[in-house]
Amino acid sequence: MDEFPGALGTSASLALRLGQAIFAVASLLFMCLDIQFYSYTAFCFLVTIMGLVIPWSLTLAMADAFSVFVKRPTRQPGLLSIIITGDWVLSFLSLAASSSTASVSDLLMTSNVSFCTAKSCTRYQLSAAMAFLSCFLSLASSLINLWLLPTA
Amino acid sequence: MDEFPGALGTSASLALRLGQAIFAVASLLFMCLDIQFYSYTAFCFLVTIMGLVIPWSLTLAMADAFSVFVKRPTRQPGLLSIIITGDWVLSFLSLAASSSTASVSDLLMTSNVSFCTAKSCTRYQLSAAMAFLSCFLSLASSLINLWLLPTA
Repeated sequence: MDEFPGALGTSASLALRLGQAIFAVASLLFMCLDIQFYSYTAFCFLVTIMGLVIPWSLTLAMADAFSVFVKRPTRQPGLLSIIITGDWVLSFLSLAASSSTASVSDLLMTSNVSFCTAKSCTRYQLSAAMAFLSCFLSLASSLINLWLLPTA
Repeated sequence: MDEFPGALGTSASLALRLGQAIFAVASLLFMCLDIQFYSYTAFCFLVTIMGLVIPWSLTLAMADAFSVFVKRPTRQPGLLSIIITGDWVLSFLSLAASSSTASVSDLLMTSNVSFCTAKSCTRYQLSAAMAFLSCFLSLASSLINLWLLPTA
């Protein structure tokens, strides 16, 4: 089972981690650049969670890249459990953050009082969409590693 | 492992299911009674998800009650997988719904334009809190059953 695609230390896992990091960075950029996001709690929450997801995914991407390109380290069940738990918690938190952002931006867009211009509203929504994608990739990593935990 | 508290068919599982159903009903009542919830997408989402959680939890509560009070049926791994998946999907959806509701009600409460009276805003928040509790209980059920799946 060592070469199961998506397990820790394979190239599929590296791709998943890079995808998570890229979507999280995109979400952060859409949210932060030129927009006063700190006036809404939900947007601050999204920025906080994406700020946690990026270092986590990049660290694991580096571990995967080392494992793919240099040499395969021994896989320890304890380490795998920590990674599964972390992925899971982060995917839960990013799901909460992205759904909050999506609903708030939807509310801002449809309400009669114009809180945001059409351009910034679209950027809020794009940010939420990127956060959803990052969340789903994180969940995929967690599920694949959880699946492999009994055979580790 | 048959008597592990919280596994399918034990009295702890019955308590968890009843808790989920009660919190979901409370969330639905806080949201629906006397409030025009259908003017906000997030609130409609919450009502939909809670409407899914209630029959699911009540069905499983009945199965647990049958197992506790009458006789213990044989536990099938296939059935357990379906229940774990269902719990997990519902807990994810209810997490998304409750965080959307919480962020929207927070936004409605703090915005300068008064969208809702203080009483209805508090009720939105209470509804979101109940949905969070239901979500966490659902997650607990899912995790306990997942833990026991390899020994089933």
